Amino acid sequence: MGEFDLIRRFFTWPTPRAVVGVGDDCALLAPNIGTHLAISTDTLISGRHFFADVDPYALGQKALAVNLSDLAACGARPSAFVLALTLPEVNTAWLEAFAKGLFDLAQTHGCELIGGDTTRGPLTITITVFGEVPNTPAGGVTHGIATGALLRSGALVGDDIYVSGSVGDAALALRALQGKITLPVSVMAAARARLERPEPRVALGMALREVASACADVSDGLRGDLGHILERSQLGAALQWDALMPLLATRQNYPGGALAFDASFGSDFAAQCVLGGGDDYELVFTAAQTKRMAVTHAAKQSATPVTRIGTVVSGHGIALLDTNGKTLPPLDAGDFAAFDHFSLG
Amino acid sequence: MGEFDLIRRFFTWPTPRAVVGVGDDCALLAPNIGTHLAISTDTLISGRHFFADVDPYALGQKALAVNLSDLAACGARPSAFVLALTLPEVNTAWLEAFAKGLFDLAQTHGCELIGGDTTRGPLTITITVFGEVPNTPAGGVTHGIATGALLRSGALVGDDIYVSGSVGDAALALRALQGKITLPVSVMAAARARLERPEPRVALGMALREVASACADVSDGLRGDLGHILERSQLGAALQWDALMPLLATRQNYPGGALAFDASFGSDFAAQCVLGGGDDYELVFTAAQTKRMAVTHAAKQSATPVTRIGTVVSGHGIALLDTNGKTLPPLDAGDFAAFDHFSLG
Repeated sequence: MGEFDLIRRFFTWPTPRAVVGVGDDCALLAPNIGTHLAISTDTLISGRHFFADVDPYALGQKALAVNLSDLAACGARPSAFVLALTLPEVNTAWLEAFAKGLFDLAQTHGCELIGGDTTRGPLTITITVFGEVPNTPAGGVTHGIATGALLRSGALVGDDIYVSGSVGDAALALRALQGKITLPVSVMAAARARLERPEPRVALGMALREVASACADVSDGLRGDLGHILERSQLGAALQWDALMPLLATRQNYPGGALAFDASFGSDFAAQCVLGGGDDYELVFTAAQTKRMAVTHAAKQSATPVTRIGTVVSGHGIALLDTNGKTLPPLDAGDFAAFDHFSLG
Repeated sequence: MGEFDLIRRFFTWPTPRAVVGVGDDCALLAPNIGTHLAISTDTLISGRHFFADVDPYALGQKALAVNLSDLAACGARPSAFVLALTLPEVNTAWLEAFAKGLFDLAQTHGCELIGGDTTRGPLTITITVFGEVPNTPAGGVTHGIATGALLRSGALVGDDIYVSGSVGDAALALRALQGKITLPVSVMAAARARLERPEPRVALGMALREVASACADVSDGLRGDLGHILERSQLGAALQWDALMPLLATRQNYPGGALAFDASFGSDFAAQCVLGGGDDYELVFTAAQTKRMAVTHAAKQSATPVTRIGTVVSGHGIALLDTNGKTLPPLDAGDFAAFDHFSLG
């Protein structure tokens, strides 16, 4: 099967909103008036970002999900994507399942495949995704940038810090798949779903447009991604230890409860998962304290759980506080210190 | 060096036209009113699309050039691109040269790097490029698609067929590098420049917007890419053998002239290069016979040589005609038959 047959068979799908979709030299989009175009690109490589034998349906979903998560982080409505797919061989059963996973998620989010490139080589998936945000700011202009998009740079001292859903479970599943730890079967299934079937928080991101002051997605770990917000906002953060620990769903739902989890793995390990684990694709965001009702409303509107975990402070870095507001000693990052898709060995 | 340091050091460049460039979850573009956004993506893989030891400066240029060539084919003005770069290792000398090649060409075309992803793995470069075209058709609406972009589908019976520059020389250089043929040193240098430093015909594409009826870039070979126009226009073509042969610059400039080239390689081989060779990144286009002056003007305005090579006819397929208009027997495609970036062994 040549490239053109392959595209025709597996990757040609109606594109009612694009002016021109797959099949010409370029795809053509007609941007809506009053919008900015949000663009993000992410690569997944076999053996690095996923195991070669991963379920191709889940892989198709995840390849798009990690890109949609970047759109969610800036509050954009997904519109289209292009797919650069490098395949070691033409395996029609694999391709059918991969394409189904991809298109199922694409349809859920109204995101059209409008172009791509198919090449032969080591299994690699690069998706570039497009979305739209209003081009006028809801509140003030952030650092001279006038846009209705959520940026990383807008956090202010005193803002609350929030994270959506649960974090750390994907990293836990990865360690179990690597044979570093053992999880009970039902726990492993739930954790693995977090790793292999992340749900991009697109609805929450859009609902937060006029609410959050800054936002990023949690792809490299909560500490790292909150760190991006803080770095670009030139501020620090104080996080509540007690608010962080319940974010690890695996620990909450562990047979025997959190105490049993901690007895098996240690509470520091749970904290390491929450702060250092990657691949969750939740949103971490900041909002003025006056926006607490609006945050609750955005969470409800998007049917997405949200937890307040701390406060933006002057200075830099992330401090962990106990229930009395006392600073805890810095957490040893363990093997999470090195989490970086690029330098990860 | 981690991913973020690497991006900061080699791939951060001013982006005066983007609303947000490298460094946030998404890049943001502000589309101009009255435009369509043209998008194309292309992957280059080491060992398939280029030799692993290729000059990194030339590779940086080519990775962007092949994408700009797609914009040229639809008449778009380049605006921005994102880069997904997979590297086996961090080699700073290599990265510096690669980035310089990339940014030199980007600056020439006013095309900003606005985002990307850097991962570790087998050397792979995927660029997604963005450009703008007017959103209103110059002439009539083609197949119900209202756009000012050049499409593959607009050719009409009786239209002239043109190709820009020279074609076949890149394929000749590839065969020499593969050890299949031997070329004199000066000839090889010129042919190799065509393979490794293609010049995307951006200015010509833009000049052809209100002139050409259909256009494609010559990336897979003249026969294949003209074939795309014909297939989408549901028509055939008659090409003049005598107009095709001089398109191979290597043959024209061969020591002793075309006759000496043909004596060494055979005239059929020259024709195979012209019709079947890939990687030229010229434009093949059609235009009404009433537009001959306008085509000449577009060529002059963009300082790009253009050759009229035949006529669009009813039916399908590509016929080769001799000087008397007699149909020549079909050319044996030789080893060019299999040219397909995907299925190429």
